[in-house]
Amino acid sequence: MSTSPQPHAPSPELFFDTMNAHVRTSALKGAIQLEVFTAIGEGNITAQSLAARCQTSERGMRILCDYLAIIGFLTKEAATYRLTPDTAMFLDRRSPAYLGTAERFLSSPMLTDGFKDVAAIVRKGGEVMSAHGTMDPNHPVWVEFARSMAPMMALPAELIAKLTGAAGGAPWKVLDIAAGHGLFGIAMARHNPNATVAAVDWPNVLAVAQENAARAGVAARYQTIPGSAFAVDFGAGYDLVLLTNFLHHFDISTCEALLRKVCVALKPGGRAVTFEFVPNEDRVSPPTAAAFSMMMLGTTESGDAYTFSEFDRMFRNAGFSRSEIHPLPPTPGQIIISQK
Amino acid sequence: MSTSPQPHAPSPELFFDTMNAHVRTSALKGAIQLEVFTAIGEGNITAQSLAARCQTSERGMRILCDYLAIIGFLTKEAATYRLTPDTAMFLDRRSPAYLGTAERFLSSPMLTDGFKDVAAIVRKGGEVMSAHGTMDPNHPVWVEFARSMAPMMALPAELIAKLTGAAGGAPWKVLDIAAGHGLFGIAMARHNPNATVAAVDWPNVLAVAQENAARAGVAARYQTIPGSAFAVDFGAGYDLVLLTNFLHHFDISTCEALLRKVCVALKPGGRAVTFEFVPNEDRVSPPTAAAFSMMMLGTTESGDAYTFSEFDRMFRNAGFSRSEIHPLPPTPGQIIISQK
Repeated sequence: MSTSPQPHAPSPELFFDTMNAHVRTSALKGAIQLEVFTAIGEGNITAQSLAARCQTSERGMRILCDYLAIIGFLTKEAATYRLTPDTAMFLDRRSPAYLGTAERFLSSPMLTDGFKDVAAIVRKGGEVMSAHGTMDPNHPVWVEFARSMAPMMALPAELIAKLTGAAGGAPWKVLDIAAGHGLFGIAMARHNPNATVAAVDWPNVLAVAQENAARAGVAARYQTIPGSAFAVDFGAGYDLVLLTNFLHHFDISTCEALLRKVCVALKPGGRAVTFEFVPNEDRVSPPTAAAFSMMMLGTTESGDAYTFSEFDRMFRNAGFSRSEIHPLPPTPGQIIISQK
Repeated sequence: MSTSPQPHAPSPELFFDTMNAHVRTSALKGAIQLEVFTAIGEGNITAQSLAARCQTSERGMRILCDYLAIIGFLTKEAATYRLTPDTAMFLDRRSPAYLGTAERFLSSPMLTDGFKDVAAIVRKGGEVMSAHGTMDPNHPVWVEFARSMAPMMALPAELIAKLTGAAGGAPWKVLDIAAGHGLFGIAMARHNPNATVAAVDWPNVLAVAQENAARAGVAARYQTIPGSAFAVDFGAGYDLVLLTNFLHHFDISTCEALLRKVCVALKPGGRAVTFEFVPNEDRVSPPTAAAFSMMMLGTTESGDAYTFSEFDRMFRNAGFSRSEIHPLPPTPGQIIISQK
């Protein structure tokens, strides 16, 4: 995107569209709350029938659906609206892959307030919301995260279990650091009947992970280690340590300190499995992964979206022998597997 | 955009990017406030030199500039940033076409608060902020508009004066309805030394227009008619009536009532000149014009972005003989010229 040519005469259009980009977020949020996508999936494809189903004005529904078509969530033909394949899979409540619940976490004040004054976070070089931002122990945002983001992580959790060969059935000891909803460790236990999982997180968050483990039928092989990943005793002899959506919250030296502790907890030949948004070395592509750096500027003291060369160096400095990166399509995230 | 194919496997990426789209608005606002674009134009092209010039942290500046590259405002090569042609023209404070001041109006609470609860505005079919939204007489948002949006309207004002043949020098009587900053009428007077302009708006807004008329050297041919366009006496015998960025605030019958009054004020053969975002008949293209309908849902009781067929019908119902539409590149707006 950074290198795309601008063949047109200078135009204020991008400025104007970007000043109004906040409306994209608000409209998507409103559409999820009104269940517009589910209603279209049910067969209500005109503004009139959608308004009746979602209990709104017809005029408001027509304008909302047109806007959703403009920003890519619907298609429109004559006066009828249809779901795109992405929308049908992820935003129709009747889909097993529904992730509309993530709206609650992604639009929670703890994640959005940090961007009320971008000039201030750029001046400071980190979040300005509180002394410790979202890294406070027992911050309620992480229970919200565990509950509402689980559907968005179900697919990557499946893909990671496959990529690491969980189905081989070796008697794995798995450590899931900052487990949250627990889905990554739980997928390991589901794919590998001989795996046991120890999950680290705050106690209030682990309660959510335990619920999910019970629902997945793996509670008997699921233990918890309550507390900060930086403070608790991990134990030792792990085959796999999962580091999913965690390292981006910290600066490099904090990450390295944690990775040294992870390396010690692994048995020889064990693997650390890191799931992250990993921008290319140019830090401006691919767009979703690279843009995650700004999310960290606004919500953490010194976190970032690290490049593979940065991760590779961190893992080597922490005692790992080598790291490999794998894309995880269709998710925008990537997997780094680091061998002890 | 509504018909673009999605050749990829289903991905939650658009959902995730849209949930975070509000950060685009915040980052652009922050960059304007910190004068990042001006600083790059001055030759500060690394995060380090930009941080020194704009008095920020280097880390924050690096993340902001990377983000601005991702969303299309900068290009990045190695670790250096450059302005795009659009950014150089419109966001470098030293450019005569600088429109960074529009940030103040476009991000004012009166324009953005309406989108805090999109479900509510869709239910109601109009804004939910107050009994009359931004249409209140003497609402301070219009003084802010007049002051901060003027630079964004300078180019269309010039283009409209050219398109209507102002330079021909005919002794025009021009009426500028809801003149705001006054730039549209003032451009007529500047291009046509034999034109006189009467500007209608609230008294506090007309003060801004009069300042601008004086600065342009046309004060002697510039009169004002203070009050609501729906209530004041326009006078008669006008050659041109300007209706710029006005009709979108109202429903069709209110527009038609005003247009009847405009038609009466024109002399035979006189023209109404309407500047608007005019979506195609599908109402979902082109994206900027079509998306303006959502802006009106959130900030007005019953306004909209009307199609040409709707405008054509309104003008005919009000007594005009015919209307023509003209694009106004490079602006995303369009001109409708309607003949009495």
